[in-house]
Order: sequence, then C-alpha cells, then structure tokens
Amino acid sequence: MCNFKKIIEMYYIAVYDVGEKRVGKMLKIFRKYLHHIQNSVFEGELTDADFLRLKIEVKKLYKPNEDSVIFFSLTGKYLQKEVLGEEKRSPSNFI
Amino acid sequence: MCNFKKIIEMYYIAVYDVGEKRVGKMLKIFRKYLHHIQNSVFEGELTDADFLRLKIEVKKLYKPNEDSVIFFSLTGKYLQKEVLGEEKRSPSNFI
Repeated sequence: MCNFKKIIEMYYIAVYDVGEKRVGKMLKIFRKYLHHIQNSVFEGELTDADFLRLKIEVKKLYKPNEDSVIFFSLTGKYLQKEVLGEEKRSPSNFI
Repeated sequence: MCNFKKIIEMYYIAVYDVGEKRVGKMLKIFRKYLHHIQNSVFEGELTDADFLRLKIEVKKLYKPNEDSVIFFSLTGKYLQKEVLGEEKRSPSNFI
C-alpha cells in the first residue's frame, strides 16, 4: 500500500534591502528558491519546508539591525507579511 | 433619502526599478498613495479610482523600455500581478 502525501505550496513575494557587502550572497540564496523578477524582488511558490530552509540561510547571512527582508505569503484569502530585521519604515496607519 | 456607496479598497504591493534620474519623482508619486516600506517597495489599500490615478501618474513619468513597475493586488483568494514597462526577468516556470 503506498500513500501519497499532498505537498502544499504557498505563493510568496520576497523583497530585501541589505548592506552592499551582502547583496551578492543574498541574491544567490534567493535565486535557489524563488524567481528573480526585479532588483531585490522575488516571487514564486514554496513548500513550508523550503520556506524554512530559505529563512535559515537568510538568517545566517543578514544583519538584523541593518538589513530588511520582507516575505508576503498568500494563504487562502489572506496576505501575510513577515519581516526579518528592520522594517525600514513601518506603515503608520496600515491595518 | 441618502444613499451610501460602499467604497471597496484593494490591498496592493508595488515595487519599481526605474532609471536613477526618475527615482526621486517616482518615490514622491508612490508616497501620495501607498506606504513606503523598503527601498522601492510600497504597500497599502487603494480604491479603484486611486489605483487608476496612481497608474496615470506613473505612466507620465516612466520609460517603458527602461523602467519596471510591478503591482501585486489581492482580490479575494487571488493575487494578481500587473507589470508596467519591462519585466526585467520574466519567471520562466511560474504558473
């Protein structure tokens, strides 16, 4: 009896603003997981496991008090936002 | 008898990659409509009318064959993507 485990992928948009010394390495990391669509903007689908792996690699490289990495993920009807490091400008009246 | 028209706002993420000469002006335009959260990344809610106004102002400034402006909008369960100008790197196998 073989059982198949349905792999659920979620859609992500990722943007980063990191120190110049880290830009090249950050680009390499993100390219392994997502599609590079603009300067420091990526999109694509990831499994939960891949998203975790990506975050682990990002956290090894980035400087929390200097860099900003933002993930938007679409889950059903909701767009979630996760910020690693500094939210350079937190939106004041964004609900 | 007064009638109220329910104003529906949609959530947007906007990213742009424009020529250096236009960055300052593009920033000013986007700041009128959305929250500036990172280098050239904005988010927030807009009515259809405001989104149209924003696009008209962007189209007056940007150079279609040099610049790239991408809008992600969340409508119900779906994330739509609209690209003005060049999609610098179109994602090959993105469904």
